[in-house]
Amino acid sequence: MSSRRIPVALTAGDPVGVGPEIAAGLLARAGDRGADIFLVGSAPHLLAAIGAAGAAPPPVLEAEAAVGGPMPARFPVIVDIPAPGPVAPGGPSAASGAVSGGAIETAARMARGGRVEAIVTGPVSKEALRLAGYPWRGHTEMLADLFDAPDCQMMMVSGAMRIVILTRDIPLRDVPAAVTQARLAAGIRVTAGALRSLWGIERPSIAVAALNPHAGDGGVTGMEEIDTIRPALEALRGEGIDARGPFPADTLFMDSRRRTFDAIVALYHDQGMIPFKIGGFDEGVNMTIGLPVLRTSVCHGTAYDIAGTGTAESGSLRTALDVAVECCRRSAGSTV
Amino acid sequence: MSSRRIPVALTAGDPVGVGPEIAAGLLARAGDRGADIFLVGSAPHLLAAIGAAGAAPPPVLEAEAAVGGPMPARFPVIVDIPAPGPVAPGGPSAASGAVSGGAIETAARMARGGRVEAIVTGPVSKEALRLAGYPWRGHTEMLADLFDAPDCQMMMVSGAMRIVILTRDIPLRDVPAAVTQARLAAGIRVTAGALRSLWGIERPSIAVAALNPHAGDGGVTGMEEIDTIRPALEALRGEGIDARGPFPADTLFMDSRRRTFDAIVALYHDQGMIPFKIGGFDEGVNMTIGLPVLRTSVCHGTAYDIAGTGTAESGSLRTALDVAVECCRRSAGSTV
Repeated sequence: MSSRRIPVALTAGDPVGVGPEIAAGLLARAGDRGADIFLVGSAPHLLAAIGAAGAAPPPVLEAEAAVGGPMPARFPVIVDIPAPGPVAPGGPSAASGAVSGGAIETAARMARGGRVEAIVTGPVSKEALRLAGYPWRGHTEMLADLFDAPDCQMMMVSGAMRIVILTRDIPLRDVPAAVTQARLAAGIRVTAGALRSLWGIERPSIAVAALNPHAGDGGVTGMEEIDTIRPALEALRGEGIDARGPFPADTLFMDSRRRTFDAIVALYHDQGMIPFKIGGFDEGVNMTIGLPVLRTSVCHGTAYDIAGTGTAESGSLRTALDVAVECCRRSAGSTV
Repeated sequence: MSSRRIPVALTAGDPVGVGPEIAAGLLARAGDRGADIFLVGSAPHLLAAIGAAGAAPPPVLEAEAAVGGPMPARFPVIVDIPAPGPVAPGGPSAASGAVSGGAIETAARMARGGRVEAIVTGPVSKEALRLAGYPWRGHTEMLADLFDAPDCQMMMVSGAMRIVILTRDIPLRDVPAAVTQARLAAGIRVTAGALRSLWGIERPSIAVAALNPHAGDGGVTGMEEIDTIRPALEALRGEGIDARGPFPADTLFMDSRRRTFDAIVALYHDQGMIPFKIGGFDEGVNMTIGLPVLRTSVCHGTAYDIAGTGTAESGSLRTALDVAVECCRRSAGSTV
């Protein structure tokens, strides 16, 4: 792995959530992480948080200059996303959503133009994004759209635990119909590609969780394993992808079992997030794989209730940055 | 808690699974557990396993004598459930299912007649039960029917972790419709009753998992929380039951959070079994609550592949017996 510096767009998330202060804490106390950081967000909010954290104020660029101007000579820099008006503290608003959404859009433009290799995202409020008129349910959907990468996947990473959440924030009743052969195939291909490019695993083994209890028990507790999942996995194995399963989900995530695979594909949100949060939350990173740029994210939310109190920890953001830098160095610029 | 001896029917499960040898290991090596044990199963299989384990052969009773005859003067005793013919080793068969099903029926009769206070069950094969003509999907359904207790619940217990699985072995696509207000109310009432009678918790707090990601996120990721679960919990609180939630399932099972409740009601199999198996499998017991008798069970299956090799561990069966004895002593004969 090289030790080259990685240019990163770090979006600060909701300006009145904990995003600005955890970003400031990162700059003030995390040392150099091997990244050249464009810190994207509302400059007044960021400068206030950076001042409170006792770090030197970085220079401020406008978004257009960050996307198309000359490469800055020194880092970090702030890329200002001006709020359309006053941003009320304490909760989501159209103004806070405009900043957090605008930051992601700007970061995506920087990535498309080759200015950054990774996007590291702070916590946003879905409600604020909605109030600001953004149609997406979350970061992953937004990035899928901005990069025209509908098959990109959400992968939760904590050390060697890697869990892909195939269907994300949808009602449980919509899950069975959403788990199609095409979606399985696309998700597993993207997962295999990411394991190869980001972690250098030449022939990754990918376990797929079953949808039904006891993996359908031969059809007694559900037919999707027979009708959909098995055929999809067989086809993928025909392509040379080591896709195994479907395995009963209740034992698949037990430590000893999970560790025999390079990644697990969970079919729905809670199936993957329950074991992830039990086993890896503290050091967890949320990644989007299958984009032309690597994206990592903090695992926690905006935490409006403690924002501004200086108690929020930068650890999750630092881990997100570290994982992004490590993976970019390994991938050597290949499409992930 | 008293130290009185508890009369227990211990069904040995499938005669060619590991049930007989783990029961034999329990008798040979587990010391006295405070239980007077009726070991219910095929006498030839049990005597062979007991001989191999180096324990003294117990006297053998016929089922009718065990149910209606005089109370034995000494324990353990074997209650013979004769196989209808030779029992092929190595896998499920109609003959093996007839023995394991017959043992449960006999144990239920003993419980109904007041002969035993608890039933501890060894591993059965659902396939064998089906081949033998039994219509039930598993122990819980069978006992619900034999005791005419349709609201009885499956509770997984490991130390202070108690998770009720509201809908059990059904396809995931059938789960949303199965989670009705009536079913929630019945399940939570039974849970509250068991926490009071079996663990002496006067005012138990019961957390209910949400069905949808983020507990439906105000309707964005599902309506069942608003339409069904919240109203059911409100009604229960009106009855004086401390039923809380619905909580997002991905964080509810994290250790620190789980420990703030006396029990968690999971709405479907994998939602509860994934965290249970990660956190408590080694010392886990499967209980049926809401029957007029307490029932506990091993957490593992028949393990046909290792049956007869003497390698199966008796630990799970011993824990099941210990939990049954402890809970019976606490409950002092109240209906659980």
